[in-house]
Amino acid sequence: MHILILGAAGMIGRRLTKRLIAEGKLGETPIDKITTFDVFPSQIHSDEIRIEDIAGDVADRSTIESLILDRPDVIIHLAAVVSGEAEADFDKGYHVNLDGTRQLFEMIRAQEDYHPRVVFTSSIAVYGAPFSGAISDEFLLAPMSSYGTQKAICELLLNDYSRRGIFDGIGIRLPTIVVRPGKPNKAASSFFSGIIREPLAGLEAVLPVDDSVKSWLASPDAAAGFLIHAATLDTAPLGARRCLNMPGVAVTVAGMIEALREVAGDAPVARIRREPDPAVRAIVDNWPEEFDPARALALGFTADPDFASIIRAHLRDQQK
Amino acid sequence: MHILILGAAGMIGRRLTKRLIAEGKLGETPIDKITTFDVFPSQIHSDEIRIEDIAGDVADRSTIESLILDRPDVIIHLAAVVSGEAEADFDKGYHVNLDGTRQLFEMIRAQEDYHPRVVFTSSIAVYGAPFSGAISDEFLLAPMSSYGTQKAICELLLNDYSRRGIFDGIGIRLPTIVVRPGKPNKAASSFFSGIIREPLAGLEAVLPVDDSVKSWLASPDAAAGFLIHAATLDTAPLGARRCLNMPGVAVTVAGMIEALREVAGDAPVARIRREPDPAVRAIVDNWPEEFDPARALALGFTADPDFASIIRAHLRDQQK
Repeated sequence: MHILILGAAGMIGRRLTKRLIAEGKLGETPIDKITTFDVFPSQIHSDEIRIEDIAGDVADRSTIESLILDRPDVIIHLAAVVSGEAEADFDKGYHVNLDGTRQLFEMIRAQEDYHPRVVFTSSIAVYGAPFSGAISDEFLLAPMSSYGTQKAICELLLNDYSRRGIFDGIGIRLPTIVVRPGKPNKAASSFFSGIIREPLAGLEAVLPVDDSVKSWLASPDAAAGFLIHAATLDTAPLGARRCLNMPGVAVTVAGMIEALREVAGDAPVARIRREPDPAVRAIVDNWPEEFDPARALALGFTADPDFASIIRAHLRDQQK
Repeated sequence: MHILILGAAGMIGRRLTKRLIAEGKLGETPIDKITTFDVFPSQIHSDEIRIEDIAGDVADRSTIESLILDRPDVIIHLAAVVSGEAEADFDKGYHVNLDGTRQLFEMIRAQEDYHPRVVFTSSIAVYGAPFSGAISDEFLLAPMSSYGTQKAICELLLNDYSRRGIFDGIGIRLPTIVVRPGKPNKAASSFFSGIIREPLAGLEAVLPVDDSVKSWLASPDAAAGFLIHAATLDTAPLGARRCLNMPGVAVTVAGMIEALREVAGDAPVARIRREPDPAVRAIVDNWPEEFDPARALALGFTADPDFASIIRAHLRDQQK
């Protein structure tokens, strides 16, 4: 089996790639080859599995064509301009997040007798206020950002291309992923990781929203697990609605801080500095707070048990 | 005021244009000029209002650019490949219905200090089974056709461009329009008009679905009224969700036939021949049957009183 990972150099892409290499198979099928693609080389190596490491623009036609001509069995599409950047740069967001994805779908359509599994990473940013209760897969897609709009459009395309038998698509709407390692990125949700990661590393972290802000969170490991499960499950039960809310942990910022205190004591908590940012607040206010992921749970997707476990997983990762 | 009508030579476009000419104003503002655009010249004339009649491809870049450089105050976008054709011709449907609309939006964005009202005609084909009860504006967009997918994507784009202040957009999801004059078209819904229009003209009509099929219908006059109201209403109460289900008449095929009998007697009813067509049935089965247009009604949109009135309006039109 040959797996193509678009966006493989990113945080989730790297984790996914390494886990696939470690497992050596996807479901029951041995993996022969993984193509890692991103803006930068992923530089992930394996002794057992052939890794082809390619750098380029996911929205570039000839680049995508060459990847698809290789006819990977499974395509996991993680490449995207993040929410804050897609809002700041209208053209770049639409170019990469919409045109890049649509071009990928079109390249698959252009191949004869080629119907791969396509796993698309969508986002809970496809939803927008007003909300009423926990969000199920039947809730209206009403994004309040260009990023969410682009993801929602790609979901519609994925459903239509799958309905027409062009490929076997599945979209998963990732919760906000915490704790991201490394540095803050341009996602409006970046602070959710920052207020855990920075204090644990002895650094100050800025909290731009109120303690009452509630969010739907999953660990990087859970995200990699969602993607692998999406790549292997039977898509027939999905019917025509191939995009799913993933299970997560619903927690307020106050709850996150309490879990941080529980796991690491008072000192890290004291390093969180409250500095409200209306721009971040405006984006986050339009994100949903809680989900009803019944459909994903019934299909076998599994979430983290609670937020303290997410922090502990981050600490374990840091010690590797 | 200058109004641009894209798709002006179509059935609704012609009716709308003639009504605007007859009224001489849009809301309270006198109309100076109407640009009618379609694949064919619309050939609608007026002594009082300047009519510019242009034929071309709505998806052609330079054509759309020249229309937008003229900076119309209101753009009413009706141009589309119909549902049956968009399903049969994947490329043509996406090219016209998605790329054409997006290019229009982009051309508006490219102009400095230009923020027209844009009225986009969407369709109830943005919805797909399973349904539960009457469909409100909060129901998930889950199209079961490429046409519905293209319309749903344009709705998302319209919301995002409006949210960003690029233009002042409003989308209206038209019910199935009956009774269409003229000949059957490639829309899967064409028979809804055919089973009234043909028998009244002394011709046989084919009914490709069961008598129990229920639909959501509006007359051509009601549709023109929706568009004019959408072009003039205050969009502030819409918030970020700028697309609306229009009010209509919920009626079964059996109910349509009974109304035909009520208005015109037994002879026309005898000219309806039942010839089930699984392809049409498959499309229609995935359309919603009944709506809750509370939001549109509150905003002042008005529907036909019942199906017999729709037939009578058709008979009056035929006598003009």
